Amino acid sequence: MPQTNGNAPGRCAPIPKTIPPMKDLTTENITENVIALNNLCSDPRTRYLFERLVHHLHDFARETQLTSEEWMSGINFLTAVGQISDDLRAEMILLSDTMGLSLLMDAIAHPRVPKATEGTVLGPFHTHDAPVTDNGYVLHDDPGAEQLFVLCNIKDTEEQPLENVQCDVWEGDSHGFYDVQKGADRQGPDGRAVLRSNSEGVFYFTAVVPVPYPIPDDGPVGGMLKLLNRHPNRPGHIHFMLETPGYDKLVTALYPRGDPYETSDPVFGVKESLIVDLSLVDEAVADKYGVKVGMKLLTYDFVLASDEQAAELRKDRRKEAAAKLDVDISTLHLD
Amino acid sequence: MPQTNGNAPGRCAPIPKTIPPMKDLTTENITENVIALNNLCSDPRTRYLFERLVHHLHDFARETQLTSEEWMSGINFLTAVGQISDDLRAEMILLSDTMGLSLLMDAIAHPRVPKATEGTVLGPFHTHDAPVTDNGYVLHDDPGAEQLFVLCNIKDTEEQPLENVQCDVWEGDSHGFYDVQKGADRQGPDGRAVLRSNSEGVFYFTAVVPVPYPIPDDGPVGGMLKLLNRHPNRPGHIHFMLETPGYDKLVTALYPRGDPYETSDPVFGVKESLIVDLSLVDEAVADKYGVKVGMKLLTYDFVLASDEQAAELRKDRRKEAAAKLDVDISTLHLD
Repeated sequence: MPQTNGNAPGRCAPIPKTIPPMKDLTTENITENVIALNNLCSDPRTRYLFERLVHHLHDFARETQLTSEEWMSGINFLTAVGQISDDLRAEMILLSDTMGLSLLMDAIAHPRVPKATEGTVLGPFHTHDAPVTDNGYVLHDDPGAEQLFVLCNIKDTEEQPLENVQCDVWEGDSHGFYDVQKGADRQGPDGRAVLRSNSEGVFYFTAVVPVPYPIPDDGPVGGMLKLLNRHPNRPGHIHFMLETPGYDKLVTALYPRGDPYETSDPVFGVKESLIVDLSLVDEAVADKYGVKVGMKLLTYDFVLASDEQAAELRKDRRKEAAAKLDVDISTLHLD
Repeated sequence: MPQTNGNAPGRCAPIPKTIPPMKDLTTENITENVIALNNLCSDPRTRYLFERLVHHLHDFARETQLTSEEWMSGINFLTAVGQISDDLRAEMILLSDTMGLSLLMDAIAHPRVPKATEGTVLGPFHTHDAPVTDNGYVLHDDPGAEQLFVLCNIKDTEEQPLENVQCDVWEGDSHGFYDVQKGADRQGPDGRAVLRSNSEGVFYFTAVVPVPYPIPDDGPVGGMLKLLNRHPNRPGHIHFMLETPGYDKLVTALYPRGDPYETSDPVFGVKESLIVDLSLVDEAVADKYGVKVGMKLLTYDFVLASDEQAAELRKDRRKEAAAKLDVDISTLHLD
């Protein structure tokens, strides 16, 4: 018999509406009861998210016969991940990255439209204070570094150049440190810029040859990797975020070939199509862009899917997921 | 082909041992690859916990076709739960409680031995600074409160009284506030004590008649409950933690019957066997314990399972879980 709004003494608010009665909850009936209570929520998408969340959380505990000590370790670990986080340290994102959730989520959000460039993980080092600047910008104030000229095209899937695309680029320095890792010593942005593609759909800048680096492993996520006997070293790469109205935002990165960590990235970000062979700047490029002959060169053709192409593919994937689970397609947030 | 230890330039530690190569990870193959990397861990129980964790985390994302915005909400939510936590505020435990995980975990850790008292959630308000005191202690400095005399037996499953059991008891005041909710104004412990059962297996103290109260709902967990249209009000109760060598530690609570929130507890803690009918102190009790005739009275017989009884039942449950999942029983942490 459902319970209706009772008297609410003292500081207690009234019960919002009729809710299912719950007593004598056991390992077997707790899940359906928690879900029934959460289903007081009026939004079907939120209800579905919590239904799946509770289902998996409880199955995890039942399947592992989770002990109090393990539960407490998990509580303390997640609390510590939150507590070490601040504007310049995104430890919870790092946890998602190292568990492969970020890559998975990205692959769901941005399914691979044929011909379009593949996305990969955003990572924890993007900031919103990069200088808005012109093509040709030198990314780093890093005197000892081996410089790298980065020269890229942006096209649509019909191979038409895309002008005026916002190109947010960021990279660690020649020692593998991002500016934000300097903490309080950070004077301002370094190793990052926001450029725009020109009328030929081209953007270019001078970076440093990327080197592998450990993800921040002095916090709880680093402790977890040690427990798992995993190394924290990402293969060297440069990040790109390409954005323009009408096109699916592309968050990706390029990885120079041959890095020792190419096949064991702790955040699962490497894709074959994003591995690049570096070459050298020749006279034509040197003359056209005002850089030195013989400097290391990275060229790449980015291909952006349109919003329609991406939406269509997401719709198909959601239909497949709904069919597999036998659930109402509307709960899968169909656009 | 597995990758062996490569050269580790710069700040990077060497790769610990042979690891599976990973590239071109997709929504379909990411899970097995993350698990393969985590399986570098040398401890089988930890490997199993992470295998199940990654499996459920990824299935959750796939089944919901999780969006970037939803993922970011989750990251921000968990970070906020960690950040609001401190020595006196256990928001991550509150999250576990409101998702039914704490009750489930407790039911797994302390399966119900026949005749033994059922456990329930610890909750976020237990502290380690309660006064160690004698039977008859008055729990609260709460002048306006309706007092309640609590008179309990502790026995084993053979009905033999248990002497010298440590009885940790705690309760909110007559307005439904625990002392720790006073924050910086907290002068010291109030509404809590650590007693011991006497030679007859009896312990007793004076509490206040418990009232319902909202769990702390001014933080992220409160926000979640609002989103779900759930009320935050726990039915009134008194907490008990009973502990003595050779017996399974009992964490439980007693709920006076008839509370408006009895069947909709936000932390899923109510069990029929833990609901009690209050009566009144008669002359015999008043004389024996030095309390007033006519005062409200709560009596209860706690029954503790032995360590052997509890371990035997946990072992059976783990065997069942292993059989259901077709996994090696050793991964289920068999005692």
